[in-house]
Amino acid sequence: MSTHPISFRYRLEQEEPRLGPGGITRGASVKQFPASQGIAGVSMRLEPGGMRELHWHANAAEWAYVISGNCRTTLLNPDGGAEIDTFGPGDVWYFPRGWGHSIQGIGPGECHFILIFDNGDFSEDHTFSITDWLSRTPQDVVAASLDLAPADVALLPKGEAYFAKGPTPDDRSADATCRKEAQLVTTHRYPLHAQQPRRVPGGGTQRTVTVDEFPISRTMAGSLLEIQPGAMRELHWHPNADEWQYYIEGRAEMAVFLAEGNVVTEQFEAGDVGYAPMGSGHYIKNTGQSVLRVLVGFNNGHYQANDLSAWLSTNPVDVLATNLGLPREKVASLPRRQEFFVKSSS
Amino acid sequence: MSTHPISFRYRLEQEEPRLGPGGITRGASVKQFPASQGIAGVSMRLEPGGMRELHWHANAAEWAYVISGNCRTTLLNPDGGAEIDTFGPGDVWYFPRGWGHSIQGIGPGECHFILIFDNGDFSEDHTFSITDWLSRTPQDVVAASLDLAPADVALLPKGEAYFAKGPTPDDRSADATCRKEAQLVTTHRYPLHAQQPRRVPGGGTQRTVTVDEFPISRTMAGSLLEIQPGAMRELHWHPNADEWQYYIEGRAEMAVFLAEGNVVTEQFEAGDVGYAPMGSGHYIKNTGQSVLRVLVGFNNGHYQANDLSAWLSTNPVDVLATNLGLPREKVASLPRRQEFFVKSSS
Amino acid sequence: MSTHPISFRYRLEQEEPRLGPGGITRGASVKQFPASQGIAGVSMRLEPGGMRELHWHANAAEWAYVISGNCRTTLLNPDGGAEIDTFGPGDVWYFPRGWGHSIQGIGPGECHFILIFDNGDFSEDHTFSITDWLSRTPQDVVAASLDLAPADVALLPKGEAYFAKGPTPDDRSADATCRKEAQLVTTHRYPLHAQQPRRVPGGGTQRTVTVDEFPISRTMAGSLLEIQPGAMRELHWHPNADEWQYYIEGRAEMAVFLAEGNVVTEQFEAGDVGYAPMGSGHYIKNTGQSVLRVLVGFNNGHYQANDLSAWLSTNPVDVLATNLGLPREKVASLPRRQEFFVKSSS
Repeated sequence: MSTHPISFRYRLEQEEPRLGPGGITRGASVKQFPASQGIAGVSMRLEPGGMRELHWHANAAEWAYVISGNCRTTLLNPDGGAEIDTFGPGDVWYFPRGWGHSIQGIGPGECHFILIFDNGDFSEDHTFSITDWLSRTPQDVVAASLDLAPADVALLPKGEAYFAKGPTPDDRSADATCRKEAQLVTTHRYPLHAQQPRRVPGGGTQRTVTVDEFPISRTMAGSLLEIQPGAMRELHWHPNADEWQYYIEGRAEMAVFLAEGNVVTEQFEAGDVGYAPMGSGHYIKNTGQSVLRVLVGFNNGHYQANDLSAWLSTNPVDVLATNLGLPREKVASLPRRQEFFVKSSS
Repeated sequence: MSTHPISFRYRLEQEEPRLGPGGITRGASVKQFPASQGIAGVSMRLEPGGMRELHWHANAAEWAYVISGNCRTTLLNPDGGAEIDTFGPGDVWYFPRGWGHSIQGIGPGECHFILIFDNGDFSEDHTFSITDWLSRTPQDVVAASLDLAPADVALLPKGEAYFAKGPTPDDRSADATCRKEAQLVTTHRYPLHAQQPRRVPGGGTQRTVTVDEFPISRTMAGSLLEIQPGAMRELHWHPNADEWQYYIEGRAEMAVFLAEGNVVTEQFEAGDVGYAPMGSGHYIKNTGQSVLRVLVGFNNGHYQANDLSAWLSTNPVDVLATNLGLPREKVASLPRRQEFFVKSSS
Repeated sequence: MSTHPISFRYRLEQEEPRLGPGGITRGASVKQFPASQGIAGVSMRLEPGGMRELHWHANAAEWAYVISGNCRTTLLNPDGGAEIDTFGPGDVWYFPRGWGHSIQGIGPGECHFILIFDNGDFSEDHTFSITDWLSRTPQDVVAASLDLAPADVALLPKGEAYFAKGPTPDDRSADATCRKEAQLVTTHRYPLHAQQPRRVPGGGTQRTVTVDEFPISRTMAGSLLEIQPGAMRELHWHPNADEWQYYIEGRAEMAVFLAEGNVVTEQFEAGDVGYAPMGSGHYIKNTGQSVLRVLVGFNNGHYQANDLSAWLSTNPVDVLATNLGLPREKVASLPRRQEFFVKSSS
C-alpha cells in the first residue's frame, strides 16, 4: 500500500542491546532510523543498584517515562541547586540540555524506562561521561580537581564506565543524601499516570504533559494513549512538532500521509517505535483484541493537534459539499464535533 | 552593470500557470528563484465559486494580500476555534504554519491575491490537501472517520482536487456558516488599505502591518509602497529580515548591494518579483511615468529598516568628513533627517 | 597527548594583519580556525584619528572588549535613535546584528580591542561598508540620496575605504556631535572592569557581563578571568553556549574533552585564541610564573556553567562510590562546595 521508500517503523526491542554491569540499553537515532530526524529514543533497563553513571548530553534535552520498576536520579542545576528524585511507573522526568545527571535502579526488580531526546542526531553513545572525562585528563589535573593524592587517583576507572553496579541505595543512610547542604526541590518529576485522563467512552484515554503542567519541560511534551479494541486515534496532524511513538502493549496500524499522494501504512507491535514528522497526517488504529498502549513524545513543549473531525465540524456545508463532491444530505451527517477517538469498525 | 552571477528578479506572471476548475496559480520557491532563500511566493486567481480546497502547509506560515476581487476563507485553530472571514482589495491575512484552511472566490469577478510563505523551500505543490489525504487512506478508516457508509465513501474524489468549483457562497444561507456552534472571531484579517499611510509629499506612501498591529502575524510583516514618478525609496537595509517584492503596477529599478564590491542592478515591471536578502543594501526607483505600486513582505513579525539619510543625519560632521573624504562645507549639506522617499532626479 | 585531529588553538596575533590608514586588524572565522563554528573573533588596533568606517554586519552581532587605549563609536538604532559613546580599557560594547556603526581611535596612543561575533561564518572582510556601497551605486542615485551635485559625488572614495584616517575627534567641537537633534543614550556600553569581581583567594578573579546586567546583549555574554600562578579554572562545561577565548597575558594549558575518549590538550600564550564547543568539558591552567589574563566570550546572553566541584558536592556518597570505584572514606574527602578556581599544584 506504500509507494514511499521510507519506513516510519523501527523495531527497537528486537535490536542487539548494549550491555554493562547492571544495565541494558537499546537506542535509535536518525542513523539507525532515518525517518526520526527530530527526535531520538532509548529503551533502558536497570537492575537494583545498576547505575547509568554521571553524564550529560551536549546537544539534547532528555524526557523520560517509566514503564515499570523504580529508580533514583541525581541532577545538578547549572545555577548550583541539586535534585535527588525517585521515580516509579507512570512518572516522567525532564533534564534540560547539558545538565549533569545519573540514574540508578532501586528495586524491587528491574526498572524499565523510555528516554526521548529532542535531536534526531543525538546518540546515547556520544554522551559525556564523568569516568571518560577523568580518565583522559592529565592525572595532576585530576588530583588537583578532586583533592586526592596521586595514589588515590590511580583507583579511578581507567576508561568510560557507562554502567556501574553498586549496592542498592538505602534512603535511610546518610550516604544517600546530597553531600552539600541541600536545596532539594522537585521540579523535574511529573507523575503523569496520576493525572485524570481525557476519556472517550468506547474509544480510550489520553494523558498529556506539556510545559503548562510541567514548566521545566520547555522543549518537549508527551502523551500516554490507551486505545480500546475496535477504536482508533482519529486522522490528525500536529502543526508544531514531530511525534515519536513507543508501543508499550498491543497491536496497531499507523499510516503517515506525506502529501503528493504519498502514504506509508505499517503494522506495529509491542517494542516498536513509530514516527510522524511535523505536519504529516496520521492515525493509530488498534488492530488487536486487547487495549493498545502507546507512549507519544513531541519535540515542542506545547501540544497542538488538528483532528479531522474538528476540521470538518468547523467548516460550512457549502465548503464541504464543493470540496468533497458530496450531496448536501451526506455532508449533513459528517462529524459535528471533535471526536479524538473514533470506532474503527463502522 | 552587474558583476554578481545571481539575479534578484523573477518574472512570476510570465510563467506557465497551474490551472484547475475555478483557479489559476503561479508560484516561486527557491527552486525556481534561487535568490529567494528565506521567502517563497504565489500569485493566485479564483473565479466566483472557485475554491482552493481545504489544506495546510507543513513548513511555513502564509501571509496574503488581496489585489482585486473578494474571497472567503475558513480556518481551524488547533485550539478548536474556527474563523470564517471575507477579504477584499487591500486586505491581509495570516495563517500560522500547519493550520488547516480553505479559500474561495465569492465574486463579483475574479479574485487575485499574493501569498507569501516564510520558508524559501516552501512549494504550493507540496501542500497537504484533504482530498489527497482521504483518497490515499484505507477506505474503512475513511468510513469510520467520516461516519459514512462505504458506498458514500466511493463518492469522494479519487485523488487530490487542489482546486474545486462550486456555487458561489451565499452568506444568507445556513450552508455558509460554521456547522458547529461557532466561536467566530476575526484575528486573521487586517485591512491594510484602510490604514492611514506614512506620506512623503512628492515621494509616496507606505502602509505597513507588523505583529504590533496584527498580533497573529508573529513571523511575517508587510508593506504596500506607492512611489511617485521621479521619486525613489531611498538606499536602506533591513537588519532583521529578508524582503520579497511583488510589483503590482508601474516600472522600477532596484539594486541589491552584497558587499565586497558586488551590486546587482535590475529593471522591474508589473508581475515581476524582487528579493533583497537580510542585511543587503537596496533602493527602489520609479523609472516610469505613473505611480509605482509594490507589495513588500518580510520574514519577521517586526519591521526594522536603516535608511541612509537616518544614518548620515545621526553621525557627527567629523566622522562623515573623514569617512567620505568630503570637505566640511559639503558634509554640512548632507541630509539632516530621515527621508524614506527621495527625489530620484536631482 | 591529543588523539583528536582538530585543534582548539589559533595563533591570532601571529597572523599577517590587514593594514590600512590608521588601523590594523587580524581576524579568525571558521575558515581560518575550523573549530570555531559558533563564534568568530577579531583583534583590531586603531591609531588616534584612525577610523573603522561606517559599516554593518549582515549575519552577526558584535561584542567587544577594550584592552588598551580609547575609542569613540557611533551607532544608528533602526528605530531612529543614535548613540555616540567613548570607551576605555575594560569597557565592553554590544551592537545587534545589522546595526550601522563606526569606531575611531581618540588617543592618547593606540587603541587595542577584541571583537567577537556570534556566527562562526562571520568574516570582517564580508562586512558592508558605506564607501563600498556608494561607489558601486549609480551616480545619479548617489547624488539624489546625498543631495549632492554630480561634481561633489566625484569627490567620494572610489571603492571601499575600510580604514580611514582623519583628525583626532575633539569633543569640544560641534563637529563631534550628532548632526540631528540627539536622542543620546548609553545602552551599548558596559564598564566591565569597574565591576566588583568574584574572588577566590589564591585562585583568581572573574568578572562577567550577561544580558542581566547589560540588557542589549541578548545573544552574547563575556568574562574576564585573572588566574594566579599555581591555580586553574577548574574542570567545567557550559550547557548553553560555545566559548571563545583570547589570551591577553601569561601562559596556560587548556584541554577540551569531546566524549568517546577524545581530549585535546594544548598550550597557550598571549595573543592566542582558544575555543571550547558547547557542552565540551574543559579547564584553564596557569602554567606560567605570573598572572594569567583571559577574555572569554559566549554566544548566549545567559551565563551557565557546571563545575566539577559543584557536581561532586551535590551528589550522595553512594553514587560517587559506585560511579568512581572509590572506598567510602576517599569519597568523603572529595570537594563539598563549588570551587571555581582550584590550586593546580596539589
